[in-house]
Amino acid sequence: MTSVALCTINSSARSIARLCQVSRSAHGTADFHSFVARYSTLRKCAFLPGGKWSFIRAGTRQMSQSSPGRISLGRYGKGVFLAAGAAAVTGVLAAGVSHFQRAEMATKISKVEEEEGNIRERCKSFMSVPVTDIKVLEQRKDAMSTRMEMLIMETQAEFCRALEEVDGGSFRVDRWSRKEGGGGISCVMQDGKVFEKAGVNVSVVFGNLTEEAARQMRSRGKVLKGKDGKLPFCAMGVSSVIHPKNPHIPTVHFNYRYFEIEEADGTKQWWFGGGTDLTPVYIDLEDAAHFHKTLKEACDKHHPKYYPDFKKWCDNYFYVRHRGETRGIGGIFFDDLDSPNQEEVFNFVKSCAKTVVPCYLPIVNKHLNDSFTPEEKDWQQVRRGRYVEFNLVYDRGVKFGLATPGSRIESILMSLPLTARWEYMHEPTKGTKEAEMLEVLRNPKEWI
Amino acid sequence: MTSVALCTINSSARSIARLCQVSRSAHGTADFHSFVARYSTLRKCAFLPGGKWSFIRAGTRQMSQSSPGRISLGRYGKGVFLAAGAAAVTGVLAAGVSHFQRAEMATKISKVEEEEGNIRERCKSFMSVPVTDIKVLEQRKDAMSTRMEMLIMETQAEFCRALEEVDGGSFRVDRWSRKEGGGGISCVMQDGKVFEKAGVNVSVVFGNLTEEAARQMRSRGKVLKGKDGKLPFCAMGVSSVIHPKNPHIPTVHFNYRYFEIEEADGTKQWWFGGGTDLTPVYIDLEDAAHFHKTLKEACDKHHPKYYPDFKKWCDNYFYVRHRGETRGIGGIFFDDLDSPNQEEVFNFVKSCAKTVVPCYLPIVNKHLNDSFTPEEKDWQQVRRGRYVEFNLVYDRGVKFGLATPGSRIESILMSLPLTARWEYMHEPTKGTKEAEMLEVLRNPKEWI
Repeated sequence: MTSVALCTINSSARSIARLCQVSRSAHGTADFHSFVARYSTLRKCAFLPGGKWSFIRAGTRQMSQSSPGRISLGRYGKGVFLAAGAAAVTGVLAAGVSHFQRAEMATKISKVEEEEGNIRERCKSFMSVPVTDIKVLEQRKDAMSTRMEMLIMETQAEFCRALEEVDGGSFRVDRWSRKEGGGGISCVMQDGKVFEKAGVNVSVVFGNLTEEAARQMRSRGKVLKGKDGKLPFCAMGVSSVIHPKNPHIPTVHFNYRYFEIEEADGTKQWWFGGGTDLTPVYIDLEDAAHFHKTLKEACDKHHPKYYPDFKKWCDNYFYVRHRGETRGIGGIFFDDLDSPNQEEVFNFVKSCAKTVVPCYLPIVNKHLNDSFTPEEKDWQQVRRGRYVEFNLVYDRGVKFGLATPGSRIESILMSLPLTARWEYMHEPTKGTKEAEMLEVLRNPKEWI
Repeated sequence: MTSVALCTINSSARSIARLCQVSRSAHGTADFHSFVARYSTLRKCAFLPGGKWSFIRAGTRQMSQSSPGRISLGRYGKGVFLAAGAAAVTGVLAAGVSHFQRAEMATKISKVEEEEGNIRERCKSFMSVPVTDIKVLEQRKDAMSTRMEMLIMETQAEFCRALEEVDGGSFRVDRWSRKEGGGGISCVMQDGKVFEKAGVNVSVVFGNLTEEAARQMRSRGKVLKGKDGKLPFCAMGVSSVIHPKNPHIPTVHFNYRYFEIEEADGTKQWWFGGGTDLTPVYIDLEDAAHFHKTLKEACDKHHPKYYPDFKKWCDNYFYVRHRGETRGIGGIFFDDLDSPNQEEVFNFVKSCAKTVVPCYLPIVNKHLNDSFTPEEKDWQQVRRGRYVEFNLVYDRGVKFGLATPGSRIESILMSLPLTARWEYMHEPTKGTKEAEMLEVLRNPKEWI
């Protein structure tokens, strides 16, 4: 749900267009094509994989060669950065882009195309045309914003199709635009055969950070220097919550997002965030192990510490403090990820997004025909109440979205279940399956 | 619900005991009885009604004669204060309590007893023994804390009995204590014949304000000077939310509360807050007029501006900003009321508390046997979802309670309905009764 926040940051200014959308006015005299070219070049510097350049870029958020060499280290970039040495970093940053690097960029462009396929072709499988015009996406196909927008659209489509297949129903697709810049595609299936409420939302928004948003960023340790108090940003993400009818099929949530902010001197800060987590009503050890194992495999391809660290982060984040319970049995959660380099983080996020279907669908299929009692349905409803409590009281994205004028409330609150229940002093009897579930929520455990 | 916050302010210190409970340690060498006597005297100075003293006290929050003459003016005290003149106020404050005033106090004590009756006798009708020991209440029967505790216990009992009579079910009564000081009595009836969930909560708590609570107070314009960073407080209130089963019977909420804070120099700030408001699922003009008229009559006995001002305050407070809707059709809401004097404000609060049953019960009885369709029940459930949104996202009391360690969560969240529903993009068809209700919530109107 966290990405929803990003979709709803309010701003009346459109100067950020040069980050995500192509705009003549954004670059004064620069014409459309030269702007796209310039923009693409800057990007290429940032996410060249392998080799000296990307090695030295490791752990930095800087994307503009003309900006002073302020280095921000992510936790995973630190080791790499230290190996490279601060002097070397400064030297290469000052040198700008060499011929060697330009040659590498050319290779990179075709590599992106080769890996990720033709944009127009890929768009055909989406739930809707993307938020950004396809022509614009084609013109800056190697920009991270394009690659991420394609990934989130693809993730939405893959997940929606998989859910439609198992349910037999179909998603309602709402394409909406945001007057301050950008828009989204909300896919919701309600009161289906299998799913009580299933929401899969994509958003791509841009504008200037509100003062409140900027304050929140600063409280997260981000040093932001705006121009005339303005901080143009671009944010995009895919976010989903699925509430099934059968209490033996767990609720799942995932969210993958990308953020860029431009500072006064043209420096761009960027980072990725996301995660996938499971909220069962009854504990099933096999399901829990499958879910976490699938996530761990995706993480391990990128860094051995990702799974253990992000699993812990997830347990900490999805904690209903006033109840002393986690929301569910976790999964992974991360934010502000900006190292070792943009390409690596994007690849990690791509791996995570690709695990959504294999994480969840086998669990859905396994319990599709499980019978359940009215008491089990009641317990599900009580747990749904807790889900609502977490989402409305703690979730950063929801809180942020609700506090922001102009946000699309229905997309933010699609994460709420169709039905929920609050029983005064509800406490399961000792030794029951309900008590077993609660015990796990009160004492998060390792599942693999 | 706002009072719930007051019930849950966390503190480990018990020095405030001298405000609400009698404690030897609180006053060092002072023995039990001399402390009670001293405390009572201080109180009497503050709420003497009529005459020169109370006239000059108008609009001040000060209760201690030894404290320097800092004056804080409430909106309703201002006129009175100006009539008295600032010089006169300063002079009398410096002079302390005269023989004339002492004589008046003596009259007052018997008047309180006469008006409000024997404490032990009154306690017999309560849902439980009060939070404060009856002996202590008897020993300081003219203290505002005692009179208010008796009033909130009485209000709880009157309302619970009236609801039990109409429902046929009975309330579960939970008496709880708070390790940091004080406790409460929560009465909840769940899944009754008429009421889906009915909660009536009393709480009487004391301790030191947490840093967060103090910050919140300061943000409300209260200048608080703590001793070694500590601000002893005493807070009490009665709070109730009733969710009936039949969608033609509206939800009601009321809350009346009293707050005292002791500053470093011994000065005590005090104020009352409260209100009663109605949340129908379908609009009934007659019900709305009856409800508001009953409240207006109670208000008009005390100040002609109370009803119009507090009606407006209510519409503003119970506003679900992200939906652009009020929670219901309002009623009255006020806070920080500390003028013209303590006696007057207490009498006003008493009048309000006494209107709860006549405001609501005639409406319940009128619709008791109204038939309803599944669609009407669904609309009720959607409106319940909005109720949950307000309570978890905006309600000051709930937010404060949830953020406070050691609070009794079940008493805070008893205000949530047994069941609620969130339908994606729910919008009533034009011309329907549902659309009519929504129109009223989007454009609050005058009911009388």
